[in-house]
Amino acid sequence: MRALSAKYENKNVLVVGGNGSDCRFVAEHYGFKHIVTPEEVHAVQPFKYLQNVHRPVEAIMVFHDSVDWGRDLQVILDALISQDGRLNTIKSQAELHTTKQSVPVYFSNSDMVWSNEHPNPRFAQGTFRSCLERIYKDVTGHDLEYTLFGKPMTTTYQYAESVLDNLAPIHKGHDGMPQPRTVYAIGDNPYADIAGANGYGWKSVLVRTGVFKPEGDENHHTHPATAVVDDVEDAVRWIISTELRKEHPF
Amino acid sequence: MRALSAKYENKNVLVVGGNGSDCRFVAEHYGFKHIVTPEEVHAVQPFKYLQNVHRPVEAIMVFHDSVDWGRDLQVILDALISQDGRLNTIKSQAELHTTKQSVPVYFSNSDMVWSNEHPNPRFAQGTFRSCLERIYKDVTGHDLEYTLFGKPMTTTYQYAESVLDNLAPIHKGHDGMPQPRTVYAIGDNPYADIAGANGYGWKSVLVRTGVFKPEGDENHHTHPATAVVDDVEDAVRWIISTELRKEHPF
Repeated sequence: MRALSAKYENKNVLVVGGNGSDCRFVAEHYGFKHIVTPEEVHAVQPFKYLQNVHRPVEAIMVFHDSVDWGRDLQVILDALISQDGRLNTIKSQAELHTTKQSVPVYFSNSDMVWSNEHPNPRFAQGTFRSCLERIYKDVTGHDLEYTLFGKPMTTTYQYAESVLDNLAPIHKGHDGMPQPRTVYAIGDNPYADIAGANGYGWKSVLVRTGVFKPEGDENHHTHPATAVVDDVEDAVRWIISTELRKEHPF
Repeated sequence: MRALSAKYENKNVLVVGGNGSDCRFVAEHYGFKHIVTPEEVHAVQPFKYLQNVHRPVEAIMVFHDSVDWGRDLQVILDALISQDGRLNTIKSQAELHTTKQSVPVYFSNSDMVWSNEHPNPRFAQGTFRSCLERIYKDVTGHDLEYTLFGKPMTTTYQYAESVLDNLAPIHKGHDGMPQPRTVYAIGDNPYADIAGANGYGWKSVLVRTGVFKPEGDENHHTHPATAVVDDVEDAVRWIISTELRKEHPF
């Protein structure tokens, strides 16, 4: 999202997700200057009109998991089907079906579920997005257009690589050539962590403590990891021993 | 929902919707004896397992609009994909795709949107249901099976008719035959109020103050009402004058 702050610096963005104003603060830190949150919109709704309260919404950015799905889905849809992002307006039925989506949408994460201590996986931002897609289709007949950031998107790995360049610069060997750098990504979600790492050419290590609950020794069928291990400690051990074997192959 | 209380009297039902324990009280009043709400489930989640805390969920009943969509969708899905309604369990991937839905679902209302002072229609229970359908399909590959009550369902009109029989008993004429009774239904939602009344053989009066916002004089295309009027007062005037014309046709 940080990379979008230049484009939207002087535009009004609807920032969705997180508790209270957490994501507003993050967005301000990224350089966005005109921010409105669903909570702020809701504070003057549903019983007051919004004329002159806010500037038109020019982009919708879901920074983090929504804590109030009903409210946030409603406010996002209001923007999507408005006349040019003006929240107090709505396109006519004919316009809804014939014109394009009013406002672009960005999501920071594509995971459908995540794991915590609960025995079942819990909904993540991808499931929220799925609901929005369904509602938008119900209302307009069109597929929602959106941009996904986060794993497994390439832009996310490019950004991570640039951070790594500072943390662990690529050394030159005795011959003056840059030495190869092996990056290992540890994760629990085959569709995000493993698919992303594999796709970007990193090594992937899949743990069994999270979303992925295999029976026995199996790897993930669609997105097989370089290695499957019990937990993060196991992953680190496996990575170190793999690297040591490189240096001392016998 | 009241009619279901006999069937589920001794079974555990998940009652969804409304603020706080409002719908729990309604369900108790209807005769349900074993009730759990998403709020109560959530109070012991996500960080505690539910073994022995609750009996298995044997039916899911959405009594009213959800006030916490994320929580309620999650808890409903947990029940739907559980092993026989036990909230701390989950079917295997293979079972999810090959076995039937664990628990039946009932909705009290099918409206997608409703109208209030806000310039745009607001989400109603039908939109919440649409999200649940999408998530259930994403997770299992199957269409959600559910039972709809409320307008425009026939059961709702049969129930209303039985209430009307007490309020406005059908009179017998001079010939001893029951006199015809005309019932007028006033509503703002073509898909619920007008479709329901038309389908049940009542007269329908569509107001322009709600969901239906026509351009000019037009009636609804899919569910045309007997009459289209400005508001409820207009509807009552139209009904009275129509009835008076019957008695004094000239």
